[in-house]
Amino acid sequence: MTPAILVTGGAGYVGSHTVTTLLERQSGQEFEIVVVDNLSNAYRSEGQKKPESLRIIEEITNKTIHFYELDIRDADALSKVFETHNVECVIHFAALKAVGESVEKPLEYYQANIGGTCTLMETMRKYGVFKLIYSSSCTVYGEPERLPLDEGHPTGRGLTSPYGKSKYFCEEIMKDLSISDKKWKIISLRYFNPVGAHRSGRIGEDPAGIPNNLMPFIAQVAVGRLSELKVFGNDYPTPDGTGVRDYIHVEDLAEGHVKAMKLFQQPGFSGFHAINLGTGTGYSVLEMVAAFKAASGKDIPYRIIGRRAGDIATNYSDVALSHKLLGWRAVKTLEDMCADTWRWQSKNPNGFKTS
Amino acid sequence: MTPAILVTGGAGYVGSHTVTTLLERQSGQEFEIVVVDNLSNAYRSEGQKKPESLRIIEEITNKTIHFYELDIRDADALSKVFETHNVECVIHFAALKAVGESVEKPLEYYQANIGGTCTLMETMRKYGVFKLIYSSSCTVYGEPERLPLDEGHPTGRGLTSPYGKSKYFCEEIMKDLSISDKKWKIISLRYFNPVGAHRSGRIGEDPAGIPNNLMPFIAQVAVGRLSELKVFGNDYPTPDGTGVRDYIHVEDLAEGHVKAMKLFQQPGFSGFHAINLGTGTGYSVLEMVAAFKAASGKDIPYRIIGRRAGDIATNYSDVALSHKLLGWRAVKTLEDMCADTWRWQSKNPNGFKTS
Repeated sequence: MTPAILVTGGAGYVGSHTVTTLLERQSGQEFEIVVVDNLSNAYRSEGQKKPESLRIIEEITNKTIHFYELDIRDADALSKVFETHNVECVIHFAALKAVGESVEKPLEYYQANIGGTCTLMETMRKYGVFKLIYSSSCTVYGEPERLPLDEGHPTGRGLTSPYGKSKYFCEEIMKDLSISDKKWKIISLRYFNPVGAHRSGRIGEDPAGIPNNLMPFIAQVAVGRLSELKVFGNDYPTPDGTGVRDYIHVEDLAEGHVKAMKLFQQPGFSGFHAINLGTGTGYSVLEMVAAFKAASGKDIPYRIIGRRAGDIATNYSDVALSHKLLGWRAVKTLEDMCADTWRWQSKNPNGFKTS
Repeated sequence: MTPAILVTGGAGYVGSHTVTTLLERQSGQEFEIVVVDNLSNAYRSEGQKKPESLRIIEEITNKTIHFYELDIRDADALSKVFETHNVECVIHFAALKAVGESVEKPLEYYQANIGGTCTLMETMRKYGVFKLIYSSSCTVYGEPERLPLDEGHPTGRGLTSPYGKSKYFCEEIMKDLSISDKKWKIISLRYFNPVGAHRSGRIGEDPAGIPNNLMPFIAQVAVGRLSELKVFGNDYPTPDGTGVRDYIHVEDLAEGHVKAMKLFQQPGFSGFHAINLGTGTGYSVLEMVAAFKAASGKDIPYRIIGRRAGDIATNYSDVALSHKLLGWRAVKTLEDMCADTWRWQSKNPNGFKTS
């Protein structure tokens, strides 16, 4: 039976790009990709079985994805997937991820993110699967005590959103689990700020409602869906006063997952390992606006408004550990991030609904 | 319909004593007590519907307890209880609580304690019940940065067991929930070290297996179930080198819950409030041994062994807030704690199984 990589939340933004990269790297039939997703944040065209993102990936790669519509908190449904496929490892993206919404609906976030992760790990253990790559976030570091943020930086302090806390709690649960049972091999990838889209322009980030994140907001202003960008504060202690973040191209991020999977093959590799995925370079909001304007040829009107609660001034990643352990570095430039986002957005002004 | 107080985990140690105090304080029929418990840690005699602890409380108080055997993670079963009774507030004890076991079975602890709490709160909201008293622990403070431990001391740092983390995570979830919805009135009672038993000697602490906590361990040595007490380290920076804790009589603790419930009646009371329940005084292991010897007239042989991972030297409570907000102070002495524990243990050498 062909080994399978189970991808939870594989229809979403980072999940779909990781699935694409996995399939693009595949030369023969070494593994099959099994995606489970409850489609709470993914669009499916009428009459289709698969969400648009997966349908398009199958076209791009000319390969088949096994897809099951289910919520990972449904232990019975999840068990059936493990019974049907020879799951070798799991890449776990499935989670709710809107910071602002998490403040309004904390219980839903904790139930989906912690409950989902616990049920997934319980099911993995039941079927003897102990290799897990987890979709974590630099949010777990809270307000930086030092920069760049290395993996030894304290986590869990002063976290301001249930979203961020849920990522931190899940990491702690995974740490404790890997201490209790040496069979576990868990890699928690702490993403900085994923942006960009597949170079084809056919899949990309498709947020529901008003985007929470800068890049899709800029892109929707450029394409005319939104009238102006709101900039949350220009009085931060940064060169131009706007917040500085470490943006990373989603294709680099996807490649990081592929590299992380190779760690599982290393003799003696076990336990819980947190690894940053970032570029190591921060850009300000206004630098992003300028770069996107250059890439798209569109004007990006913006307005400075007050700071947003819970935002920090600056963060960027220490990349030493990811380079050492994964042999990986982000290679895409800021121009690539903007050009690829623009290709996706201009081809699909309303996201997957128009593709 | 008579208002009901729903007590989760009401068959357990602190739960059963709180139920007893509530019923003892009741003059007429102001409320009914509804206990839900999955009996994972409570003994029930063959042929009985109710666990021994509740059966005995009904004898002591001459009052009836409504009992449902269910796991609070079973949302449907829990909903039926809310449909059957006019639940006015919830006192939430149900949780797994063995520190050492939590290190071995972290997933079970997180699922029971976080999953249980989330399902409970979801169900409460569904039925419009927003008053919650939570059974928390001084464990959330981790290694003390200062003593006495006041409620403003940081929580969640350096926690060494999944048990402790699960208490901390639940408090954070409750905080976030009370921020998102002003209807919530949540009081998290941070217990120091509950000991003792009901003055009748008919209900008390009945741990499964070798006790984790000092007092039941001493009591089982005194009664001859265990041959000697293991003292985990005598090289701590304390007067006699053994660990110092703030032991509180479980009847004082129970009274604290009754007082906390009165806060719900205060106009304008809302949000999340953490309140210590301790005496403010610490006793060392050897002081406890001496006091128990005096109370029981039994010799307590002990042996000093190495420190236990995760133990701290000293903790004791700042009691100012509990006094101010609840108008409550622990009144039982160390002698009471030992005498009442001994009455329970000597009458019931094998706990509820022999009662």
